[in-house]
Amino acid sequence: QIKPERLLSFIAEMAKIGGTPNGGCNRQALTEEDRIGRALFLDWCREIGGVSRLDSMGNIFVHFEGTDTTKLPVLMGSHLDTQPSGGKFDGVYGVLAALEVMSSLYDQNITLAHPVEIVVWSNEEGSRFSPAMSGSGVFAGKLSQPTLYQSVDDQGISYQQALIATEQLGELPCESFPFAAALELHIEQGPILEAEQTSIGIVTGVQGMNWYQVTISGETTHAGPTPMSMRKDPVQGLNTLLPAIYAKVAEYGEQARITIGKITTIPASPNTVPEHVIFTLDLRHPTQTILDTMSKEVLNLCEQIPPILSSKIDVLWQSPAVEFDSRCIEVVSGAAKKLNLSAMPIVSGAGHDSVYLSTVGPTGMIFVPCKDGISHNEKEHVEPEHLIAGGNVLLHSLMQLAQ
Amino acid sequence: QIKPERLLSFIAEMAKIGGTPNGGCNRQALTEEDRIGRALFLDWCREIGGVSRLDSMGNIFVHFEGTDTTKLPVLMGSHLDTQPSGGKFDGVYGVLAALEVMSSLYDQNITLAHPVEIVVWSNEEGSRFSPAMSGSGVFAGKLSQPTLYQSVDDQGISYQQALIATEQLGELPCESFPFAAALELHIEQGPILEAEQTSIGIVTGVQGMNWYQVTISGETTHAGPTPMSMRKDPVQGLNTLLPAIYAKVAEYGEQARITIGKITTIPASPNTVPEHVIFTLDLRHPTQTILDTMSKEVLNLCEQIPPILSSKIDVLWQSPAVEFDSRCIEVVSGAAKKLNLSAMPIVSGAGHDSVYLSTVGPTGMIFVPCKDGISHNEKEHVEPEHLIAGGNVLLHSLMQLAQ
Ligand SMILES: NC(=O)NCCC(=O)O
Ligand SMILES: NC(=O)NCCC(=O)O
Repeated sequence: QIKPERLLSFIAEMAKIGGTPNGGCNRQALTEEDRIGRALFLDWCREIGGVSRLDSMGNIFVHFEGTDTTKLPVLMGSHLDTQPSGGKFDGVYGVLAALEVMSSLYDQNITLAHPVEIVVWSNEEGSRFSPAMSGSGVFAGKLSQPTLYQSVDDQGISYQQALIATEQLGELPCESFPFAAALELHIEQGPILEAEQTSIGIVTGVQGMNWYQVTISGETTHAGPTPMSMRKDPVQGLNTLLPAIYAKVAEYGEQARITIGKITTIPASPNTVPEHVIFTLDLRHPTQTILDTMSKEVLNLCEQIPPILSSKIDVLWQSPAVEFDSRCIEVVSGAAKKLNLSAMPIVSGAGHDSVYLSTVGPTGMIFVPCKDGISHNEKEHVEPEHLIAGGNVLLHSLMQLAQ
Repeated sequence: QIKPERLLSFIAEMAKIGGTPNGGCNRQALTEEDRIGRALFLDWCREIGGVSRLDSMGNIFVHFEGTDTTKLPVLMGSHLDTQPSGGKFDGVYGVLAALEVMSSLYDQNITLAHPVEIVVWSNEEGSRFSPAMSGSGVFAGKLSQPTLYQSVDDQGISYQQALIATEQLGELPCESFPFAAALELHIEQGPILEAEQTSIGIVTGVQGMNWYQVTISGETTHAGPTPMSMRKDPVQGLNTLLPAIYAKVAEYGEQARITIGKITTIPASPNTVPEHVIFTLDLRHPTQTILDTMSKEVLNLCEQIPPILSSKIDVLWQSPAVEFDSRCIEVVSGAAKKLNLSAMPIVSGAGHDSVYLSTVGPTGMIFVPCKDGISHNEKEHVEPEHLIAGGNVLLHSLMQLAQ
């Protein structure tokens, strides 16, 4: 069993770094707050004998020896970065629960057969640098490091510049190595477990997700003297496009998701018709073929705008639906049963570093419920009993996989 | 007659300051570019004996003596600031034509009876600091200096900080003084004069305009696991509101104008449902009572959003419809006739510093056509023949009003 108070205090201490007045966290990837949070985490790891390495994407690997030098490592981890107005648990919980698991083994002088690596993946959120899950994506060879290095935030700072500025650019090349298994404990970020009054989600896979950036272009002109009929106004393009897009996605039923998270106008002046309206599209569906068709139909609509306007579509990211490793799923399920915890299979609606990890080695995930299903919000909340239950399932799953 | 080459060269030299690769200008109010442009203008004024003063809003008054010390000054001017992607003529033309007029009088050793003040009004555009026409608005007692001082740009820099940083904070209090007449020469910024193949617009008044900022608020949550039915998504509020607003304004016929120049989401992250969508509304109509009714109906729509969302409306600016001084209108009309130029009466669709000036003294405006009616655009273009015609009408009108 893990030590509940210690886990809760790890989480509370980390939440202070980038803590917001509304009780959330703003510790975006590769900012000064992220640097401070990572340093605190490494201090805690050192106390229990963890040895850390940093790779060229800023991923952190904290190594703990095993008794059998012939065995492959077991990976446990998640991410420490947050959304701009994010919560205290998303990602953070998985990293700190892994730390608590290793601390509990250390307390009891237990060394497992396999070595263990606690991993902190860089820029999982994708809100500062697009796309999401960048550290694990490059590790798995699914995203390109040179492309990511050039990805810029809203201030024009590149990923590479941010790595250097925060001293997170490691010498180790970012590339996958063989591992026995990888485990990620995470909050559900949705309402299902809470609605089913279930403590543990045995994650069987992750829905597919596509990110696009749509630019509608017209012509800037003066808001006053220009007759409405002479305008090439991209906001009027948005006016007809938005209802069409939402209606289209609704045709795909309850499991389809659409989010327009970012809208901007260029120029942005009250008395000027903008030249461009730019918005992001996040489309998701658990069934990859349905996601493909739905995305195609939505992009078609974006292309069918009035001829006085033009539109451009950039693919920001595509993360296909995945199914997790059957042995990992069984191990998580077995651990929950052994601990007498309520548990159910669940498909993740959010992307996680495990999506990319699952393409290079046996991977599994554990979910715990969060209040009202709310995440990416300062109000994100998880009951201590669930935090503790999840930590114990992680401990028992690790012992099974690494013994 | 003015000297055409000199006027064109004043305009070409000024256009280099903040000049953009696409041939436009980005010399926003109280930026370093604005400071450099103003300094160049003052150098030119000094060469012909103009003596300048700066007031507490950064308005510049360049004084030229008259022969009769009992007479009130005649004001001539406009603004030097531009939109973020603006043109070379909007505002600038009126200031530099006034300079050219005084240069021509200086060449010919003519001193008028009345003193003359060339005025450069601060932050006319309203794109960096809201509202527009701030310098003339405070001068006329219609806008509040303390409120303007606290108006911030998108980087959080206040009007007062920008005044100090660019050394444009004068000791002269910004308040109106008696004047005999005020004249502003400007490009039409609309398509009417060009369509009518007319060189000179005798501006009889300016349409009314209202600026609002609308904030729709919901709840941030994760783009992936949150079912569509559980979301409080302000972008979905925008989705239904935009069509309703555009349809409502269309009911008011051809003369009604609506522009949504700025849309932003907070937070702005592809995989987070935003908490707020904020947009600006610029509503205009030549008849004040119609503008009032139309604005009320549009704001009603903004308030009638689905109950899971909330909305907030901030009034940014209200500039009532104005009619210019009948004597000024006659003088401009007479000057055009004397010069054998095609001319017609016109109502301005754009706001100008003259709107506020007309509330404290006799005021008139002269328009010249601009290509395709396009303004607030880097492509803004005016044929030299029109620039010269306008300059000559300004010269003859001044001589009439200041003799
Ligand atoms: N867990 C999480 O918030 N991941 C970000 C990727 C996504 O948008 O699903
Ligand atoms: N002339 C001009 O662009 N003025 C700005 C005020 C307005 O929006 O009409």
